[in-house]
Amino acid sequence: MTSQIEKKSRDFITTQDWSQADLQSMLDTAAKLKESPYGEDLKGKSVALLFLNSSMRTRTSFQVGAHQLGGFAVVLQPGSDAWPIEFETGKIMDGDSEEHISEVAKVLSRYCDMIAIRAFPKFKDWNKDRTDYVIRSVAKHADVPVINMETITHPCQEMAHVMALQEKMGDLAGRKYVLTWTWHPKPLNTAVANSSLLIATKFGMDVTLLIPEEAYLLDPQYMDAAAENAAAHNQKLTVTTDIDEAYSDAEVVYCKSWGALPYYGDPTAEWELRQNYRHFMVDGPKMAKTKNALFSHCLPLRRNIKASDEVMDADYCIAIDEAENRLHVQKAIMSHLIHPE
Amino acid sequence: MTSQIEKKSRDFITTQDWSQADLQSMLDTAAKLKESPYGEDLKGKSVALLFLNSSMRTRTSFQVGAHQLGGFAVVLQPGSDAWPIEFETGKIMDGDSEEHISEVAKVLSRYCDMIAIRAFPKFKDWNKDRTDYVIRSVAKHADVPVINMETITHPCQEMAHVMALQEKMGDLAGRKYVLTWTWHPKPLNTAVANSSLLIATKFGMDVTLLIPEEAYLLDPQYMDAAAENAAAHNQKLTVTTDIDEAYSDAEVVYCKSWGALPYYGDPTAEWELRQNYRHFMVDGPKMAKTKNALFSHCLPLRRNIKASDEVMDADYCIAIDEAENRLHVQKAIMSHLIHPE
Amino acid sequence: MTSQIEKKSRDFITTQDWSQADLQSMLDTAAKLKESPYGEDLKGKSVALLFLNSSMRTRTSFQVGAHQLGGFAVVLQPGSDAWPIEFETGKIMDGDSEEHISEVAKVLSRYCDMIAIRAFPKFKDWNKDRTDYVIRSVAKHADVPVINMETITHPCQEMAHVMALQEKMGDLAGRKYVLTWTWHPKPLNTAVANSSLLIATKFGMDVTLLIPEEAYLLDPQYMDAAAENAAAHNQKLTVTTDIDEAYSDAEVVYCKSWGALPYYGDPTAEWELRQNYRHFMVDGPKMAKTKNALFSHCLPLRRNIKASDEVMDADYCIAIDEAENRLHVQKAIMSHLIHPE
Repeated sequence: MTSQIEKKSRDFITTQDWSQADLQSMLDTAAKLKESPYGEDLKGKSVALLFLNSSMRTRTSFQVGAHQLGGFAVVLQPGSDAWPIEFETGKIMDGDSEEHISEVAKVLSRYCDMIAIRAFPKFKDWNKDRTDYVIRSVAKHADVPVINMETITHPCQEMAHVMALQEKMGDLAGRKYVLTWTWHPKPLNTAVANSSLLIATKFGMDVTLLIPEEAYLLDPQYMDAAAENAAAHNQKLTVTTDIDEAYSDAEVVYCKSWGALPYYGDPTAEWELRQNYRHFMVDGPKMAKTKNALFSHCLPLRRNIKASDEVMDADYCIAIDEAENRLHVQKAIMSHLIHPE
Repeated sequence: MTSQIEKKSRDFITTQDWSQADLQSMLDTAAKLKESPYGEDLKGKSVALLFLNSSMRTRTSFQVGAHQLGGFAVVLQPGSDAWPIEFETGKIMDGDSEEHISEVAKVLSRYCDMIAIRAFPKFKDWNKDRTDYVIRSVAKHADVPVINMETITHPCQEMAHVMALQEKMGDLAGRKYVLTWTWHPKPLNTAVANSSLLIATKFGMDVTLLIPEEAYLLDPQYMDAAAENAAAHNQKLTVTTDIDEAYSDAEVVYCKSWGALPYYGDPTAEWELRQNYRHFMVDGPKMAKTKNALFSHCLPLRRNIKASDEVMDADYCIAIDEAENRLHVQKAIMSHLIHPE
Repeated sequence: MTSQIEKKSRDFITTQDWSQADLQSMLDTAAKLKESPYGEDLKGKSVALLFLNSSMRTRTSFQVGAHQLGGFAVVLQPGSDAWPIEFETGKIMDGDSEEHISEVAKVLSRYCDMIAIRAFPKFKDWNKDRTDYVIRSVAKHADVPVINMETITHPCQEMAHVMALQEKMGDLAGRKYVLTWTWHPKPLNTAVANSSLLIATKFGMDVTLLIPEEAYLLDPQYMDAAAENAAAHNQKLTVTTDIDEAYSDAEVVYCKSWGALPYYGDPTAEWELRQNYRHFMVDGPKMAKTKNALFSHCLPLRRNIKASDEVMDADYCIAIDEAENRLHVQKAIMSHLIHPE
């Protein structure tokens, strides 16, 4: 993965840059902060939150979390309340962008102690978007730790997800984990799906990826990384298009909808495939096939599209717990980045 | 009123849910906070401010107020910088909304200690809007106190208004209070008008509603509640279309413009009535008919449309004091909700 | 200058309202805060940041700076998340504006201890815009100190600029300072150019204004004020269209692009001039003509349009230091306004 080539240990861009032990150490901190939320770990410190896309949970949990630890989060929305930004190097900037990321990153590094960024892919050219160039550009020019608030992976969500699973299941090694593609009217970002594979394999789970057809396979850089993670735990990464096979004996069902990468940038063509897979929605009958599995989703979730009301309102749904854990894990991540051991 | 059926004592959705004594207790706290603004009542606590509509005073006073008490306010603008939200139950969410209020309310309840929401009516169907379903949905799903920052009533404004009147007049019981409809080029929300009737009658004033014609009567649920409030104080609620009668002997003139409910959702038809009533603007000659009345308005106010420069700049205008009191009463409300006696 | 007629000592609208000694005192405070950033000078205090235009540096540095001194900044964006505002007096407000600046300024004065405003000119009528009527209206109605976050001058930028120059050069008196017009595809605000002349002359530098042709002269109110400042230091203000003459022996090169005032409000006509001056971009060969000059720009900057990558990435470029100093000088300014000696 590109991420490993440019790896900077003090950035939190992908969990692949961190060992399972490091991640567990952050999760342990998060558990303590859940018990005892206030502290001074970020006293006087600030984090710039750069949102190139909408947010509700991420924004709230970072702002509240920084405050609870004595710090401060500044919310910036370039293109809306700040200037559009150029990410390419050496360019003659005669387009819309008024400023280069090198200046943005350097200046924010002078004002703030961390920079967090949300930058969804552009849905035009996957060959470009798959390089994660926006956050990589920020990290290249920043003098302070950079945190991924969702680009083409969503590592803060991964941490919240694992924390919720550990709270309910304890040790995760060897437990059957299913990531299922689910229905949504639009071809969405693959970030949370990529992240689901990475983190479930990193923590030694027995992971199955359920997709409607091969076109919904995730990018090889994540499929391969997940397979390597799995191998390191003597586990495997299974891919199937068989709903019954996937749900059978599952102990965790995580769902996410995403666009088929071969049709990236062409939603009309993708729709021809997509429209056939409404039945991938997670519902009660499917969950009944599992081994009393927990269910979760990263939110936001369209009810009765991605998952039924029955599933969302069931006791086995831990989506709200996972969302809550965003607060705790992000406080732990910021704390570890500011005070590395 | 619907509000009484679903009453939850720890929400601040309408003043009708609270006794006059409770409200007075909050007003007394507000007066103390006006003298001595800093404290620790909200130390470590946070409030989510959900703005579905624009705001200046509300936003500033909640943010500053939370800070002055050691707390923190997160500003969220769903549809602008966060996801559009669905409020109906059981719906197949295949429209624009990416998330259901049940998840939003539950997740914000995990991050924050209070949720405040501004949700103006949609101006299409009064039968739907009059149920105040947005804030009722939030309150139904939230696990923390919910505060109304203006929906179809505006209880925080009510409290600031009464506080300003008490500061100038002392006991309000029996004083002649006029709520007058006033001119504005558009059919606005009835919220502050509803609130004016509710709070003035709740505090035992002798209330007159001055409207151009019957079409400008307020919703029966508020007319009736105000009449009941008045009766409990052995007062009455008078309705008139006679400007001279209304202003004569008035001790308080509060003005507000709103749309005629029979024409709700049809501004063109409403304009046929509205255009005849420019002369309802509050001006010096009208104020001269009163018993040295105080004048106020909730702001924002179009000068020389709703009230003349002469009125706005007069010593009897207490609109700025009322606006200031938003800060004090909201701090008191948050404090009472977090620390109920 | 108009500013001097309406001068209110406790506003920070233009550096022309303040003596060099006062400004130096703030710069000395800023230097101390750069060494030791945390304090209680703004404890419990708040500042309203009114952005009528986009911002990144200004917003972040004011928010973080207020926090570092124990205070709090509220960000307001009228027209976006708050109501559009009327600035004219005596007007019948039947247009788009829902509120008059007199109410906005008075109410914010009740909530906050300072009001800062960014209000770029409207690019239609320079005779109107040159009066700086927006911030002047705020200052007229506000009861608290008003800070200019860029209107037709940018005094906070001036202070950051001078601080960066003093850090590198010590005493500035008599040093050759060049403000050069530079290329940009659009006719921009003259604010930073005006400010550059004002502050460089105020601190006794030997100032040269380099422009492509006479149409790019700045407004006489600033040309005259700068000439007076220069005269008070026995210096002169030189204007030239000769690139070689300007760069020769320069010790500081500050660049900015702006629109030709005779064509204000007519970008198509202005383009006929502008398109001929791409070669004013600051580049390595031009900088080589100087006496090892420092280079700076206020940011945002389009690379390879206003200045080349070579210049921006050179050791002599202090744009990032200048940007950092925004944080320090603004903290010093707020501190001096809240605690005047």
